[in-house]
Amino acid sequence: MPSLNDPAPSWTTTQWFNTAKPLTLEGLRGKAVALYAFQMLCPGCVSQALPQAQRLRETFPSEALEVVGLHSVFEHHQANSPATLEAFLHEYRIDFPVGIDAPGSEGPLPRTMFDYRMRGTPTLVLIDAEGRLRRQVFGHAPDLNVGAEITRILQSAPNQPTATPADDCAAGACSIPT
Amino acid sequence: MPSLNDPAPSWTTTQWFNTAKPLTLEGLRGKAVALYAFQMLCPGCVSQALPQAQRLRETFPSEALEVVGLHSVFEHHQANSPATLEAFLHEYRIDFPVGIDAPGSEGPLPRTMFDYRMRGTPTLVLIDAEGRLRRQVFGHAPDLNVGAEITRILQSAPNQPTATPADDCAAGACSIPT
Amino acid sequence: MPSLNDPAPSWTTTQWFNTAKPLTLEGLRGKAVALYAFQMLCPGCVSQALPQAQRLRETFPSEALEVVGLHSVFEHHQANSPATLEAFLHEYRIDFPVGIDAPGSEGPLPRTMFDYRMRGTPTLVLIDAEGRLRRQVFGHAPDLNVGAEITRILQSAPNQPTATPADDCAAGACSIPT
Amino acid sequence: MPSLNDPAPSWTTTQWFNTAKPLTLEGLRGKAVALYAFQMLCPGCVSQALPQAQRLRETFPSEALEVVGLHSVFEHHQANSPATLEAFLHEYRIDFPVGIDAPGSEGPLPRTMFDYRMRGTPTLVLIDAEGRLRRQVFGHAPDLNVGAEITRILQSAPNQPTATPADDCAAGACSIPT
Repeated sequence: MPSLNDPAPSWTTTQWFNTAKPLTLEGLRGKAVALYAFQMLCPGCVSQALPQAQRLRETFPSEALEVVGLHSVFEHHQANSPATLEAFLHEYRIDFPVGIDAPGSEGPLPRTMFDYRMRGTPTLVLIDAEGRLRRQVFGHAPDLNVGAEITRILQSAPNQPTATPADDCAAGACSIPT
Repeated sequence: MPSLNDPAPSWTTTQWFNTAKPLTLEGLRGKAVALYAFQMLCPGCVSQALPQAQRLRETFPSEALEVVGLHSVFEHHQANSPATLEAFLHEYRIDFPVGIDAPGSEGPLPRTMFDYRMRGTPTLVLIDAEGRLRRQVFGHAPDLNVGAEITRILQSAPNQPTATPADDCAAGACSIPT
Repeated sequence: MPSLNDPAPSWTTTQWFNTAKPLTLEGLRGKAVALYAFQMLCPGCVSQALPQAQRLRETFPSEALEVVGLHSVFEHHQANSPATLEAFLHEYRIDFPVGIDAPGSEGPLPRTMFDYRMRGTPTLVLIDAEGRLRRQVFGHAPDLNVGAEITRILQSAPNQPTATPADDCAAGACSIPT
Repeated sequence: MPSLNDPAPSWTTTQWFNTAKPLTLEGLRGKAVALYAFQMLCPGCVSQALPQAQRLRETFPSEALEVVGLHSVFEHHQANSPATLEAFLHEYRIDFPVGIDAPGSEGPLPRTMFDYRMRGTPTLVLIDAEGRLRRQVFGHAPDLNVGAEITRILQSAPNQPTATPADDCAAGACSIPT
């Protein structure tokens, strides 16, 4: 992944849901960002990451933290059409902004996923108000850690993760085939 | 729904997964059948009904009980393409036979769902070895009840449900709009 | 454990809760019995076995099936006084009859636990209306299996367990030290 | 409860487990403290609060945060003997320090519970390194909130709770009878 505390890579997306206009990382400067890269057919994304994203939305004020979904499809591309994603978001009552990660120039990995060197889905990316990458977690990140890390970011404190890294995959996480 | 202990209506399907040839109710005579009508974008189907179907598959011998999925789409038809269903079955590791309920002649309800007068998804239908409808439950059916009912059916005992009916909807069940 | 289909050993108890008079196995002839041996300080008993016992109580009619708890203490005897058990039953709202397994003549194992050759707690014992032992499971027994087995017993069918045995321990089950 | 940001009341205890010497609030000056008032026969304490305490212990460094249990018995006093508590702590593998709240001078409420005006168990009390009360929650406090609040306290930031208060009772929480 990109180096911690460096500027987080820009996002490259093709379409957005639940927002009047596309979100860019640059346009969110001044707010912290919790970005959840997911696939709608990834069991760990559906059972753990997206519910956590919704809890974040209810826990932190939207003026301070933007919760964003990124549909980063790296397999079953045909099955994951925008129309299917739209129905999925409706049925699961996901109401935070969700962008579709742009297709990669070569290979199955979408652009943003590639630029962040993500290992699969779900991946949680935490970015501070200055646009710096503060944390990137593949798989399940426990609520205690995420609550602690976001608070640290909101307080602009230097990045000294005291909490146990939550880096291993949850059952159901989808790894990029190697 | 059709009357209990009457012959269960035939299924009308357009395509099958996880089986070399289409399954018909008539062709399964001699075995009990647990039929799960579901939609891949229905949260209660994904979190409760399909895992229960897989537990059934592991609990009862396949010579005695056939576990069958029926993709009965009554909303978001475009989003629920066969290709998407196939990817869904792969990602969720569902390996019992799943048929696609045929489109209805009028309105959004698919044929088999209409013929069984189902109220939404998930719906569990239990059918005995003579092809008679023994139980139809909309929403979540607790494991204790399902284990009891299937055993009663397997023993060809007359239908005297002593267990509490499990008829109300689970959170996340999808009702047909009225 | 005693042989399946043989007469189940009598219980030896010192005190009962939630019943006007002590229950004996002989006095329950004509009904099936689900006996849960537990300890109030055993995590797996509290999180899994006792909730299942309560679901059984709500699922099967009490005329056909008696659900009985047996407090079989094999460690921390001093901590497990009858007064503490009574408060525990009250706080956890357990309302089926619970007996206290009588102290053993030698060693820490209580009498009934010893006579059934139980391996620890929780242990589920299923007994048919003729008083025969039909099933004995140490650790967690899945609801589907238990629902199936009790139904088989209620129908006086010969004991042909088709369901997967549920014999390994749940996390939190307490084994008798060896 | 006492006023937020005021000095937290001292604890009054009679006995400690999992620590070589009694812990006092004064002796912990310089560290933040997460104090969990619980009763071993309180279902919500056992299923939610104590597991959260253990997750806290694994998430934050013990140099920065002390996790402390306080057995605050306000009912079933006889059932909650120190010997029973000791067995409980052993069986549930609770290894952080646990004190026994001292009996009150009148009425069933123990001293510390009374001095903090707690409404029942579980109650989570967060205290900063200067000994000031920063948060007091009766019932279940979600992990996201607790992680955020402790981090705020660890950073000595002024108390501006942005997170949703988690003040209502979890199912299973025990209220002081009124």
